[in-house]
This record gives sequence, C-alpha cells and structure tokens, in this order.
Amino acid sequence: MSGSEGKTVAVVGTGVIGRSWIRVFTRAGLEARVYDLDPARSLAAVAWARASARQDERQGFVPVGGAQEESHRIVPCSSLDEALDGATWVQECGPEDLDIKRRLYRELDERAHPGAILASSTSALDMTRIAEGLAGASRCIVAHPVNPPHVVPVVEVLPGAETAQEVVTATLELLTDVGQSPVLMNRFVPGFLLNRMQAALVREAVSLIGSGVASADAIDAVVRDGLGLRWALMGPFGTGHTNADGGVGDYYRRYGAAYRSLWDDLDPDPDFSDAVIDRIHEGTEAIYGPDATRTLGEWRDRMVRRIRALKVEDPPPSAD
Amino acid sequence: MSGSEGKTVAVVGTGVIGRSWIRVFTRAGLEARVYDLDPARSLAAVAWARASARQDERQGFVPVGGAQEESHRIVPCSSLDEALDGATWVQECGPEDLDIKRRLYRELDERAHPGAILASSTSALDMTRIAEGLAGASRCIVAHPVNPPHVVPVVEVLPGAETAQEVVTATLELLTDVGQSPVLMNRFVPGFLLNRMQAALVREAVSLIGSGVASADAIDAVVRDGLGLRWALMGPFGTGHTNADGGVGDYYRRYGAAYRSLWDDLDPDPDFSDAVIDRIHEGTEAIYGPDATRTLGEWRDRMVRRIRALKVEDPPPSAD
Repeated sequence: MSGSEGKTVAVVGTGVIGRSWIRVFTRAGLEARVYDLDPARSLAAVAWARASARQDERQGFVPVGGAQEESHRIVPCSSLDEALDGATWVQECGPEDLDIKRRLYRELDERAHPGAILASSTSALDMTRIAEGLAGASRCIVAHPVNPPHVVPVVEVLPGAETAQEVVTATLELLTDVGQSPVLMNRFVPGFLLNRMQAALVREAVSLIGSGVASADAIDAVVRDGLGLRWALMGPFGTGHTNADGGVGDYYRRYGAAYRSLWDDLDPDPDFSDAVIDRIHEGTEAIYGPDATRTLGEWRDRMVRRIRALKVEDPPPSAD
Repeated sequence: MSGSEGKTVAVVGTGVIGRSWIRVFTRAGLEARVYDLDPARSLAAVAWARASARQDERQGFVPVGGAQEESHRIVPCSSLDEALDGATWVQECGPEDLDIKRRLYRELDERAHPGAILASSTSALDMTRIAEGLAGASRCIVAHPVNPPHVVPVVEVLPGAETAQEVVTATLELLTDVGQSPVLMNRFVPGFLLNRMQAALVREAVSLIGSGVASADAIDAVVRDGLGLRWALMGPFGTGHTNADGGVGDYYRRYGAAYRSLWDDLDPDPDFSDAVIDRIHEGTEAIYGPDATRTLGEWRDRMVRRIRALKVEDPPPSAD
C-alpha cells in the first residue's frame, strides 16, 4: 500500500492531534514510537489508537496487516530517546507556544537520528522562527494537519527559511505515501491556507446571524446542502471551472464585477458578542439536539471517510 | 414520495436553471408546464429534461412512476397562458433585470390562477421591488436555487415586504415536498446567504494566489480534501459544534480572539487582474486537464447525488 511501509516514525506529544497522527502512520504499515511528557496521556493515546484501529477494521477500513498487527506497530515509549530510536520522521505535536517549541526543537535536533525529518503540527507558528539557530534547521518543516488527521487528509506543508529542498520533497512523498493530501505553501501567512479561508466564511456567517438576516440552521443548511456538497469534490477554483463553458477563467471574467461588488458589501467586523455566540449555540443545538458533540463528531468521521471512498471509486477527470 | 404529487406547476424561462427546475418537479410526481419566449429553447429544455430523467433511471435514481411516466409530466407549451393553465405554482426563471422581471410579474399576476404562488429564481433582485404595486404582491416570493437545482438541494426563500405568511409557509412546504432544502431569509441582502459566504471564501482564495502564497491546486486541495469534506455534512456552525466538548458556543468563546485576529489579517481587496485570473485558470487546468468543464460538471452532479444518498442512509443526530 505504501512505499514507506516498514519505516519508523516518532509521535511526540499525544493530545487529540498526536493520537490521530499515530493512526495515520501505523495503519499504513509504519511503526510509530509514541512519547509524551505526561506518561498517562501517552498511554491513553496508545489505547485510543489501538481501539480506533479495531473500530476501523469492523467498519471495513482495514489497516495494513489488520488491526492486531497495527497494534504492535504502536509502541509506547517512556523517554524521548526511546521514541526517537530508529525514527526517520518525527511528528511533533507539542503546545502552540514559540518558546516551548524552540526548546523542544533544540532537544529533538540534538537527539534524533541525523537523517530524521522534524515535522511540526503547529497551526500558527513559523518554522523559520522555531528552527532559528539550530544546527539542523534544514531538516525542520511544518506539517499542519486538519483535526483529526486520520480522517481528513489535507496537510499544510510549510518549509522554514533554512529548510532543505530535499526535506520538502521527502515530506510531500511520505505524507502522500501514508494517504494524506499534502499541500505546499510558499511562505508563511497567519492561519496558513485552511484557517484563513475558513475564517473568511465564518466571519460572514457570524455577520448574517448578528444582523438577523437568517437563523443558524438556515446558514448552516446553505453550506451543508449547497456550497459544501460541491466543495467536498472541488475547491473554489474547480467549482468555478464548472460554472462557465470556458472554465474558471471565463467564469471570473464574466462575474468579476459581481464578485467585487459583493466583496465590498461583506461585513469586515461582525458582532461576535456573547449574545450572538449564544444565538449560534442555541440554533445549532436546535438542529442536532443537546449534548450531541460526541455523536456528531463520530458521524462526521464516519461520513468523511465514506465521501473519500466515493472519490477513490469514481475520481474526477485528471490532467495525467 | 411527495404530498404535492399530482399538482401542476409552470416553469417560465428555460435556461440552465429553468430546465433543471423542470426535473425537480416532475421527478417528484408533479406536472411541469414549460414555456419560454424562445420556442426553440423551450423545446431544447424539454428534450434535455426527458433525457436527464432517462439517465437518472439508468443510474438508479428512479423518478416517481419511472422515466417514461415522468416524460409525460413534462409538457411543452406554446404560450404563457397554456403554461399557466391549472398551475398552482409558477417558477419564474427569466433574465436578471429588474425592469424585465417587473413586466413579467405584471403579466404573471394578471394571467396565473388566482391561488397560484409566483416564485422567482432570481439570485440578485429583491421581491419587494419586483412585486411593487402588483395586485397579487402577496403571492410573490423569491425561491433562489443553486445550479443545478435538481442536483444541489438548497433553495433560498426570501419573501418581499408584501408577501403573505401563508405563501411563505406553502413555499417551504412545496419545496420540502419535492426534495429540496428551503432556507428562509428574514430580509434582503445582496448575494443572499450562499453567494455572500462563497464570495467571502473566494476573495481569500484569490488573494492567496495573487500574493503568491500557494498554487491554485494547493488552495483547491485545502478545500476539497479539508474544509469541504466537513462542510458537505455540517455548515460552519455544525462544524464548530464538533470542535469543542461544550459545542460551538464553547468553541467560539475559546477561539474568538484567534478568529478576530485572522479576520483583521484577511485581504479586503485582492488583486483580481487578468494576470491572476489566468494563473488560476492555468492552475485549474493543470489539475483536471484541458476542456474538462463538461466532464467535470457531470462528475460533480453524479458525486453530489451520491453524497446526498449517504446522508439519507446515515443521517446526523437530530433534535427531533
């Protein structure tokens, strides 16, 4: 299944993102050595990952070699050195604090195998600053996943100023090998790509609630029964490509003025007070019922994987 | 299948949206009487709708009574009066021009059955202005679909100032009956809900291209392999609801400052020059190949309906 099968990776930091990364690697046939400063959290993550592997198998998403074999590839470690032993890839999932990350990277750079790539799950920090002054700055790179990475495949890849080109190439290769969809950024911007585009849409959604134009259910429905059905298949440009016979260029030339005029009308600074947040919360509970966050999350994970399976069965036309 | 089965509707104007509306009604068991000022276009729409019904049947989306029976419910008419005969619902799909719409609504109001609802597919105009001064202003309402409505279910419903409450209720009922997802707006805003939220995301996507942060493929992939996979299931608020144990209220309270800070960093006025549009077009062709707009559109329609079928089979938790 994967050209990286049999490799060893270290997952350092085992919160919600770290534990999900374990599965990304081990279900694809890699060994994941797992470490957290908090031993209880590390053991909980290992237990979660093994249970998740068994659940996958029951649902027909069979890991390489089956769930039991995958469980053996999930290796709890009681020290950082033990986790780094033999690892050619380190997926760092520590706290989002520049000073902590810098200290952690100094330690990782000193102790990891000289050829290992040091990848950070950070959603906010710039690798140029994390790796500043490190002997091994050239092997440091951001690989920011979406939560949870074992369900949602996109990973934003952002080299720092000193990251070597071959590290970028190897990163894209490994992530593709294990079934993720890496996307390369050319330079740092706050929020990277995904959180910026999400924030842009959320800002307008919040504004439409705050100004009383529609209910939370109406606004959510416009996305889940409208925009999102197409965006699960193609991004904004691919969607635009289907909107005019001459493709997205033709479409944007025809409707450029309409877009500009809407852009000028969007609300740059919506009311995001507690009152508006409460209205959104109550409106959302009215859709899904109270205390639905766990069951809704499980449903989301199951359904995202089914949509991905549909796309594998019947892929879009391709330039290849 | 539908409480509206056996009713008669008129589809007036048979461009891409009008012809797709025909199928929304006729596949659900209603009769659609079809009229266009241009008789050739009307006949082409009828032929398209009948072929589309047969294709559906082959793909397992069987219309009420089968494709052949549906074909008989698609009735080409050679005059407006013939189309309005017996219709209790008129779906108007004329040009997006206020003067033309006002003239058309005067005519529809004079000639349609007194109890008929006059619904407009407009994506931009305000029913308050279209129906101004009409004797039957109370029965006029906007029902703006997404292209193509027989594939993407959401319909934005916007009453005018004089629209009667029972017309709003009947509109939501009929659209639900025929399998669409109507969402009610409380007042007019340019672009309604869907195009505003789409424009907000597209603006940031265009900015990320223009400023060289990432390629068109990278930006599209972040949506199709990331944001869109969740948004096909839940809108922004539902998605936020799964991001914190306490639901979307908890999530926005925790990350409100991060959102605000990203909002301040978004580009209000991106470079949308021909050079940027060309870069988007070339990047999009590099994903899907040249001249892919037709096959890509067909793939989208097929896949959207499969995603919808998944959601019918395995619905989300609900408050009911």
